[in-house]
Amino acid sequence: MNSPTSDIRIRFEIQSEDRDSVRRIVESTGFFSDAEVDVAVELVDERLSKGPASGYYFAFLESDGFIVGYACYGPIACTVHSFDLYWIAVDQNCQGHGFGRRLVEISEQEIRKLGGKRIYAETSGRAQYEPTRKFYERCGYEIAAILPDFYDEGDDKVVYVKVT
Amino acid sequence: MNSPTSDIRIRFEIQSEDRDSVRRIVESTGFFSDAEVDVAVELVDERLSKGPASGYYFAFLESDGFIVGYACYGPIACTVHSFDLYWIAVDQNCQGHGFGRRLVEISEQEIRKLGGKRIYAETSGRAQYEPTRKFYERCGYEIAAILPDFYDEGDDKVVYVKVT
Repeated sequence: MNSPTSDIRIRFEIQSEDRDSVRRIVESTGFFSDAEVDVAVELVDERLSKGPASGYYFAFLESDGFIVGYACYGPIACTVHSFDLYWIAVDQNCQGHGFGRRLVEISEQEIRKLGGKRIYAETSGRAQYEPTRKFYERCGYEIAAILPDFYDEGDDKVVYVKVT
Repeated sequence: MNSPTSDIRIRFEIQSEDRDSVRRIVESTGFFSDAEVDVAVELVDERLSKGPASGYYFAFLESDGFIVGYACYGPIACTVHSFDLYWIAVDQNCQGHGFGRRLVEISEQEIRKLGGKRIYAETSGRAQYEPTRKFYERCGYEIAAILPDFYDEGDDKVVYVKVT
């Protein structure tokens, strides 16, 4: 059902049911700690309660009514045209079909519409995250900075940027 | 009244009156945009409404009941021991007495008590902010990263770090 030939729908409006979908998707990847999963859901709550003023924008990819992945992005406070790509996550069972790439492209389009020119994405420098880093690099993101031991001893933060 | 020989008191508990003091102090410096001043006050509001769960901690320096400056710092979500020094500001009329340095030292002490080991401070690379950058460097902070055009075209973000 989740092949590339399925009928894929993009949805930008958020719904309260997205709390559960975001938790399910982020947990399924096996990449994130409980605290990180909670943060992902908190951003949905912020958007649900504050609307665009929350600073969090979402894009959901739906296949036959099932949410296969989502992106969360938004303007960085006190900057003129910098945006953060906070989350890109695709359900573990739906990976390998280009949904992640599609979510990045959709987010970039929306960020441009919102006046964004520089898009930042942060991830870990640990070996486990090499697929994530390679993914951003394939999407045209370049390393802007590496902050040693940022997340923990031996766990650097890698900051990517794409000028769009 | 605000000389180094005055009776200086440190206060960590926040009060609703601090909203006005923070606005007054941050505005007085002439360094921050209206949006940045609003952000400074929003952090006070977050702390007032959510307590320590807000993730924002404050230290106020009072001289004869007058707040001469303040610091705002807190743990960075999803990191083990990294903290942000969000704001250090001293009233324009009280500068040159070492209050800023004192606020950094107090913040660092409190951050260590909270388990922090790496302290990050961000500022602009613009010429106007050279005093700020020199201040952090005198306090033992080193440049960890420079993100070109982050705040605006020609306005880089400089990220400082101190391992404590």
